[in-house]
Amino acid sequence: MTAKSAHRYLIQPDPDHPDLSEAVSGRDQDGNVIDLRVVVERPLTIFLNAQEIVTAMTIGDFPQQLAVGYLRNQNMLRADDQITAIDYDADLQVVVVRTRRKTDFEEKLKKKTHTSGCAQGTVFGDLMEALEDVSLPPEARLHTRWLRQLTATINTTPSLYLSAGAIHGCVLCHQHQPQIYMEDVGRHNAIDKIAGCMFLDAIPAADKIMYTTGRLTSEMVIKTVQMGIPILISRSGFTAWGVALARQTGLTLIGRARGKRFIILSGADRLVFDHDDDIDDESFDQNLKV
Amino acid sequence: MTAKSAHRYLIQPDPDHPDLSEAVSGRDQDGNVIDLRVVVERPLTIFLNAQEIVTAMTIGDFPQQLAVGYLRNQNMLRADDQITAIDYDADLQVVVVRTRRKTDFEEKLKKKTHTSGCAQGTVFGDLMEALEDVSLPPEARLHTRWLRQLTATINTTPSLYLSAGAIHGCVLCHQHQPQIYMEDVGRHNAIDKIAGCMFLDAIPAADKIMYTTGRLTSEMVIKTVQMGIPILISRSGFTAWGVALARQTGLTLIGRARGKRFIILSGADRLVFDHDDDIDDESFDQNLKV
Repeated sequence: MTAKSAHRYLIQPDPDHPDLSEAVSGRDQDGNVIDLRVVVERPLTIFLNAQEIVTAMTIGDFPQQLAVGYLRNQNMLRADDQITAIDYDADLQVVVVRTRRKTDFEEKLKKKTHTSGCAQGTVFGDLMEALEDVSLPPEARLHTRWLRQLTATINTTPSLYLSAGAIHGCVLCHQHQPQIYMEDVGRHNAIDKIAGCMFLDAIPAADKIMYTTGRLTSEMVIKTVQMGIPILISRSGFTAWGVALARQTGLTLIGRARGKRFIILSGADRLVFDHDDDIDDESFDQNLKV
Repeated sequence: MTAKSAHRYLIQPDPDHPDLSEAVSGRDQDGNVIDLRVVVERPLTIFLNAQEIVTAMTIGDFPQQLAVGYLRNQNMLRADDQITAIDYDADLQVVVVRTRRKTDFEEKLKKKTHTSGCAQGTVFGDLMEALEDVSLPPEARLHTRWLRQLTATINTTPSLYLSAGAIHGCVLCHQHQPQIYMEDVGRHNAIDKIAGCMFLDAIPAADKIMYTTGRLTSEMVIKTVQMGIPILISRSGFTAWGVALARQTGLTLIGRARGKRFIILSGADRLVFDHDDDIDDESFDQNLKV
């Protein structure tokens, strides 16, 4: 039976799925044989119509969402594009996204910029242009009591991270509720899979919060802003350019979110301080598990 | 004054360098103003002769070594290539590596595969071919007492990781001694900078150990094997393909190395068990700091 969180997600990790991790045998410091599970990486080649775009290394779940989200976050798929078919071949490890509009990115692919921190070669000039068109909703709010509930729920959700480690997670949240929790070897894949879900199911972005386990690099900020999500939270730290881009685009940026502690470096006007200082984190975590 | 480790490195982090991190001001969970340092990311465009190869996001130190190491690890620069000049322009953020041999990678760049976990678009088919030519020295040894000394020294070395966080480190080691400690926003940059040092200074690989703070993904295994280094150690975990590639190429692969604990999943024949179980990690760490 697959482990499930007490919280109801739309999509949550399936750490017991046999395709996502493998058993390997090794030895510990005393020479004892030990068995552990390690996450898989496999290539997935993404086509947009007749054009081969990229081969990504991924754990392999949600290939359609990954392909659509990748293309959307690279601005190769436009917000108003109509997808006519998504063909996935598990044996060939290929996914083909077909659109009504004719596309050709041969030229654009020549001038890739590889961004830092788990990057997959974003068409950088185009991305920066795309950011200028995005306007994040100023009226969005983040209550500090949501923040604690979110991190407590996410941290106790059964995941490949908890069972095998060496993996990144991204979670799309609404208020205090995590809704879509994706994992992958690179966090760019995890966030792209969320972008794919949002595009395919027409999920609105303005009232959402993005949570990531990884660092708040420029790439994560760019993708979140592009997706139209006004708030980005991480348990990890910041980079200078991530902070500068968040301030420039009006993104609410919160890092080092652990228990009731956090640091906000951009967009503090969306924050509502309403957490209760009297609740310590341990009892709070335990309450949530019931 | 710049913080220095008691241990003598050839190259070690310079966490106080004003170009590598920035002061930013934010607020904590109680609304108090707090100041912290965050690492920078800046673009560096790498040319090989007249050909623009890639724009990497990097903290910006050791641009020449990063360029040379990147080109070497992408197999664009061969082991026997002669570098005639390396021109770095700090204002343009461009570095040009010039070689005696004529090079042209226009075609190869078209078929990039983006590898997982902080990847920069490796020319994947070529890399796999290159791995077949590498033969790692079976006679190399790793003493388990070195392992504890290495992790203790590295963990107590002043670094951007300790002062600002959100950064990866790679360390080239000889026996129990860390020698070259590079940091960057992506660990692929950190290991490429080490590869650049090794190429430029003709440092032999067969007697070295690579240590990384990050996960043991296929990319880290491929780069280490390509560099001819027989042993790879990380404080983080494994991926399945990283393990499979290590076993295939005969790389000694050690993960979750913390204090005296570790797990070895490949190449255990190079391991010499000679650590003293009676020494606990705390006293060991303190001894090292003296």
